Amino acid sequence: MRLLTVLLLALSAQAEIQFASLGSFRLDSGLTLHDCRIGYQTFGKLNDAKSNAVLFPTWFTGTSNDLRGNIGHGKLIDSDKYFVIAVDAIGDGISTSPSNSKAQPHLRFPKFTTGDMVRSQYLLVTETLHLKHLHAVMGISMGGMQTFQWMVAYPDFFDKAIPIVGSPQLTSTDLLLWNAELHAIEAAKPPRAGMRAVADMHAFALTTPNYRATETTPAAAAKFMSENEQNTPAHFAWDDWTRQLEAMIGHDIAKASNGSMESAAAKVKARTLVIVGLQDHMVNPLPALSLAKLLHCETLEIDSPCGHLTPGCDQARVAAAIARFLQ
Amino acid sequence: MRLLTVLLLALSAQAEIQFASLGSFRLDSGLTLHDCRIGYQTFGKLNDAKSNAVLFPTWFTGTSNDLRGNIGHGKLIDSDKYFVIAVDAIGDGISTSPSNSKAQPHLRFPKFTTGDMVRSQYLLVTETLHLKHLHAVMGISMGGMQTFQWMVAYPDFFDKAIPIVGSPQLTSTDLLLWNAELHAIEAAKPPRAGMRAVADMHAFALTTPNYRATETTPAAAAKFMSENEQNTPAHFAWDDWTRQLEAMIGHDIAKASNGSMESAAAKVKARTLVIVGLQDHMVNPLPALSLAKLLHCETLEIDSPCGHLTPGCDQARVAAAIARFLQ
Repeated sequence: MRLLTVLLLALSAQAEIQFASLGSFRLDSGLTLHDCRIGYQTFGKLNDAKSNAVLFPTWFTGTSNDLRGNIGHGKLIDSDKYFVIAVDAIGDGISTSPSNSKAQPHLRFPKFTTGDMVRSQYLLVTETLHLKHLHAVMGISMGGMQTFQWMVAYPDFFDKAIPIVGSPQLTSTDLLLWNAELHAIEAAKPPRAGMRAVADMHAFALTTPNYRATETTPAAAAKFMSENEQNTPAHFAWDDWTRQLEAMIGHDIAKASNGSMESAAAKVKARTLVIVGLQDHMVNPLPALSLAKLLHCETLEIDSPCGHLTPGCDQARVAAAIARFLQ
Repeated sequence: MRLLTVLLLALSAQAEIQFASLGSFRLDSGLTLHDCRIGYQTFGKLNDAKSNAVLFPTWFTGTSNDLRGNIGHGKLIDSDKYFVIAVDAIGDGISTSPSNSKAQPHLRFPKFTTGDMVRSQYLLVTETLHLKHLHAVMGISMGGMQTFQWMVAYPDFFDKAIPIVGSPQLTSTDLLLWNAELHAIEAAKPPRAGMRAVADMHAFALTTPNYRATETTPAAAAKFMSENEQNTPAHFAWDDWTRQLEAMIGHDIAKASNGSMESAAAKVKARTLVIVGLQDHMVNPLPALSLAKLLHCETLEIDSPCGHLTPGCDQARVAAAIARFLQ
């Protein structure tokens, strides 16, 4: 009965996903994604002036289904007021991905960038949804990275930007974490066997150590760890994990400005609210805070042991700041 | 020329290492280590009363050579005053180890515990060095874990204990980290290929993320990472890494007291100074601080972004506290 409920819920959730067909999609690398499809779900209603659309790309290993918990009245973005477009980033297993591409399966799927994700979303918004402007772009974690990328790639296309626990550019500590996960998969045979280490490592970095040590007692640790090791690769395929990791590892919004973050910042036109967790161990907050200084923009800095999970742990506070900022 | 100097230094350092031969050594598991040899180096002079001996076991992946930087006047332990016995923990590549055992090479080397390390050291001290008492036992990181184990295993044998960034019992966050490293090696083919991910992960957890992000700029990150990935497996063999990891994963000084840390604490007779880094992300400080409360003992709690490297970053402060405590 419980399985049936889960299945029905999954089906009903799946049923909401629509797809934009982009055909052959040329990547930053010069290579081409064949039969590129971008998944998305919409929530709320577009108003007559078409001025209330908010784009919400997915986080690393997340799908538009996973975003649902953040959309609705009292949630991060209020779909009573805004027409929310939750979009599946390339490689998330819903949009065209290593795990679902027939033409380019697994590691034959070419590497892509956060720039490619954003350009695919721009095509979805303009050519499939026929919108000429967005009110805002917002995103959590890798969704925040895509938001920063939107700010320099399409600066005139939206009025407000809300990157949440995201980053404009990776630090050495971010690179160590993502490369640790990448190298664990690369060295494993079969590659999926590497996901056990990846799951441990990911859980290790998601919160502060003291948060985990306090929340999960030594007696509960074995169960917590083995469930996490089973659920992680079940939720997200190792090949999708690999290619999305590589997109994050290469992420740097200053790249198109010869490495100058000042020049990148000068491109930005959106009014911006930068939200970070000061104790975030998964996406280091320092580059986002540095860019906020260059932009002279508003920040919400939350000092919580929840670390990278702060937007969830402090949902009410983050939601209130976003609601006020978007008005 | 530089290589020659390094070689001569290595030879001169190696020349100082002596070995205690323990023969067949029965492990906690009931299995036997064949031809068990324990490496050690001594610094300073034993006084006539034989009352100034301090035992200093190695940290995880460290050897008695690596301890040298912490021994001497002005260092963590003053060898002008104390007879310092730096001892190589089982599995460190100097003492009997998976990487150097002819009878039980690689993973045919049986698993061992921190209790086994400590018992081998007790035999070295009593049967080879013919000491009936130690003034103190001290150690850093896994050396601190061994110090906690000494406190419950041989409570009458020494007067003072100084566990530094060690732990009496692992938390869920420690278990996630060490299992991430273990599982990366276990899934890799050949196992040594897993050390690349392990090196990244280890560096990620050694300090706070903000410390690493600030110390190593994005421009310097690639060099830092690749040097670390090469040096880590060159310094310490994957099979030794595996077995010492397993020793830490099983470490719990309450195990012999039916899981009761109160009962374990009641065994302790040594006056104790617990030194922790409050921002230590590699060995969580909470269990050491909880035990310190049970012991009503002195603590030195350092709040430094150096994290697990705090004893090195704050060497003068730690050395001063130890010098005062030992007097």
